[in-house]
Amino acid sequence: MTSNAELKNGNDKFQVDSKYRGLESNVWIELNSLNDVLGNCVNLGQGFPDFQPAPAIVAELEKVCRSDPNLYAFHQYARAYGHPRLVKALAALYGKLLDRSIDPMNEVLVTGGAYGALFYTIMANVGAGDEVIIIEPYFDCYEPMVLLAGGTPRYIALKPDAVNSSASSASWCLDMDELGKLFNSKTKAIILNTPNNPLGKMFSREELTAIADLCKKFNVLVISDEVYEWLVYDHNSHIRIASLPGMWERTVTIGSAGKTFSLTGWKLGWAYGPHHLIRNLQIAHQNCTYMCQTPEQEAVAAALEVEIGRLGTEQSHFQKLTKELVGKRDEMVKAIRDAGMVPVVPQGGYFILVDWTPIESTVDLESETDQCEDIRFVKWLAKKKQLLGIPPSAFYSAEHKHFARNYIRFNFYKKTETLEKAKEILKLLQAPNQK
Amino acid sequence: MTSNAELKNGNDKFQVDSKYRGLESNVWIELNSLNDVLGNCVNLGQGFPDFQPAPAIVAELEKVCRSDPNLYAFHQYARAYGHPRLVKALAALYGKLLDRSIDPMNEVLVTGGAYGALFYTIMANVGAGDEVIIIEPYFDCYEPMVLLAGGTPRYIALKPDAVNSSASSASWCLDMDELGKLFNSKTKAIILNTPNNPLGKMFSREELTAIADLCKKFNVLVISDEVYEWLVYDHNSHIRIASLPGMWERTVTIGSAGKTFSLTGWKLGWAYGPHHLIRNLQIAHQNCTYMCQTPEQEAVAAALEVEIGRLGTEQSHFQKLTKELVGKRDEMVKAIRDAGMVPVVPQGGYFILVDWTPIESTVDLESETDQCEDIRFVKWLAKKKQLLGIPPSAFYSAEHKHFARNYIRFNFYKKTETLEKAKEILKLLQAPNQK
Repeated sequence: MTSNAELKNGNDKFQVDSKYRGLESNVWIELNSLNDVLGNCVNLGQGFPDFQPAPAIVAELEKVCRSDPNLYAFHQYARAYGHPRLVKALAALYGKLLDRSIDPMNEVLVTGGAYGALFYTIMANVGAGDEVIIIEPYFDCYEPMVLLAGGTPRYIALKPDAVNSSASSASWCLDMDELGKLFNSKTKAIILNTPNNPLGKMFSREELTAIADLCKKFNVLVISDEVYEWLVYDHNSHIRIASLPGMWERTVTIGSAGKTFSLTGWKLGWAYGPHHLIRNLQIAHQNCTYMCQTPEQEAVAAALEVEIGRLGTEQSHFQKLTKELVGKRDEMVKAIRDAGMVPVVPQGGYFILVDWTPIESTVDLESETDQCEDIRFVKWLAKKKQLLGIPPSAFYSAEHKHFARNYIRFNFYKKTETLEKAKEILKLLQAPNQK
Repeated sequence: MTSNAELKNGNDKFQVDSKYRGLESNVWIELNSLNDVLGNCVNLGQGFPDFQPAPAIVAELEKVCRSDPNLYAFHQYARAYGHPRLVKALAALYGKLLDRSIDPMNEVLVTGGAYGALFYTIMANVGAGDEVIIIEPYFDCYEPMVLLAGGTPRYIALKPDAVNSSASSASWCLDMDELGKLFNSKTKAIILNTPNNPLGKMFSREELTAIADLCKKFNVLVISDEVYEWLVYDHNSHIRIASLPGMWERTVTIGSAGKTFSLTGWKLGWAYGPHHLIRNLQIAHQNCTYMCQTPEQEAVAAALEVEIGRLGTEQSHFQKLTKELVGKRDEMVKAIRDAGMVPVVPQGGYFILVDWTPIESTVDLESETDQCEDIRFVKWLAKKKQLLGIPPSAFYSAEHKHFARNYIRFNFYKKTETLEKAKEILKLLQAPNQK
């Protein structure tokens, strides 16, 4: 038996396990605490709307709560891999969109948000020795999840066309030669996000085909985060890489009820793909949270069934949503330009990247001490001007954070009143030559 | 650049990552599929009630769904580590029960069910080289979670007192010498489950003190799964190991809204403990699903606030629940004895272990091929007699599955109609000498 003297020191022994070392901090946790301090900030930070979601879907959740003994099952365990009504609705929806038959029980998994779907996809498919290509800017959780899974991230940044960068997120592109050089025999997966957060870029058919060709050549898995699939503006159309020839069998596509129905707090997402890949996710899921909450699954299923029948019509929730959002986007674009800053007009999603450097001479960056100047700008703007945005350096790897230096991300999916307040603040930020 | 010939075979490359190898199967998934085939079984298998939960708490969820713009926030992202109203209610409740001040923001984490809390606790605190002591029989997920985290499980079985084993789950005990020998300098944690699933055993103050002394001596973390904390019968009282001297700082205690309010489908659980341990769980949580669904968090918070005021009174939901359940337990105990089998009368929880060997001569175990005879009995009972239970070998390590050989687990938290049907089936199973 070991003596007490041989035992490790208590504090050391109870530190977080080494698999999480380096993964302790997180832009959202940090900025939420900032926002707690600055409770009077206009919050264009985190990606959620500040108004009621569509009444029809909330009514579906309310239905589940009615006093009727026949409804008991909606308050008890769901099927582990997804409530049957929901996986059937998802299989029907994506089956229609991809023009293929999808097996609801084996090719769809319901998860605790798209975040949970990303976790399972990465944990189950990536391990020691595997390289994963991540396109920057990227939703910040991709990196820690790849590291936790045991993999090595390899980064490539979308870069703006020098002439035309502010016209549209479409002018931010991948250098396909640079991308080709990242692929090798260790490449296990590439993580794609279209429409992209924070940029709003939507990958074109040509771009996706080039990526797909590399993935097929090197036998690489595509993890396609498409949570903003319905938030698409102008004449852009969302192209699912799983629909390209030969790609279904190597793609896990991730979607979100929160982003689709503006209910981020319902924390329901999903992944779909071929059974041999979804099976891997099922194994990760049954060893993590095991199943998802039943009431929201029933409500989302009912809402999706209605929307499948309305696809492409004016009654479609998705069309109404887009119409509402494009108006908000255009308002924000104008307000930002009026303030002398340069927006990157997003093709999709509900975020806008803004180049704030035209007003840099009016900003006291020295009042903050962070290494990244975009973080300093965000903190200055929150503390001194009461407007909260997100520093896009959080969406770049350590070696590429300088690409984010000139930008801030705003969420424009806010009620009119909030956007008006933000516009008032933006007006006061006018560039020196406009004053 | 690598040539195609050098690439791994597609199928091999897309197999689940090695960290999940050996963790693919799971008793629930297997038995649910059995139950799908045998849709006409009386289901005393998985642990959920088959009737409506308390109307008052469902009404709290319904309130969140009312059409009122002030309620929008309940459909959007919650605070990552737990909705403030819920963590405050939990801190108040357990603060009262443990007679100490609990910091709601730093010493409580809300999770995707108790299953999620177990996952975070084990993943964040256990790593390569760590040993974790697991008391058998154990809720089956402990083992794969410890393995996934990188740890090595060490098992010790509760053993029935030879004379008196059927009187009560209290007669199943740990050999404290055997337990002492398992502790060493590599021991990182012990997982405790009281009331125990599937046995219903509640650890006494003396037993918990002996375990606590070993944990203090060897500087070991206690992971205390107390999801059945309110389901306590006869004159037993539930003792929280975190309340013993010197134990708060080394204990993570796990609870469940699903078990507390009979809403297993709401998929909300929690962990509480000192900040230095809960911080580890927070890190695991923010790199997994990040946050939990807001509507249920608000509803559970409201229900808990009411119950805190009613603690120890006849209006208490927990007292009513126990009263209802003890009646169901006693009914099942009688029916099992009448059928000539031997129940282990549970002190807590909503499961009962039953020794089925008195009727073994009437059972065609050869009709099934599983290695474990308890599994054969479960399958025979489901297929031939339409009664579904759970084979307790799922709750033992590979080397100790023979301890479960003679038993089946039934869930008695079912409506009267279901229990009546089960009793009808049990009557037909009478032991040969009673026929």
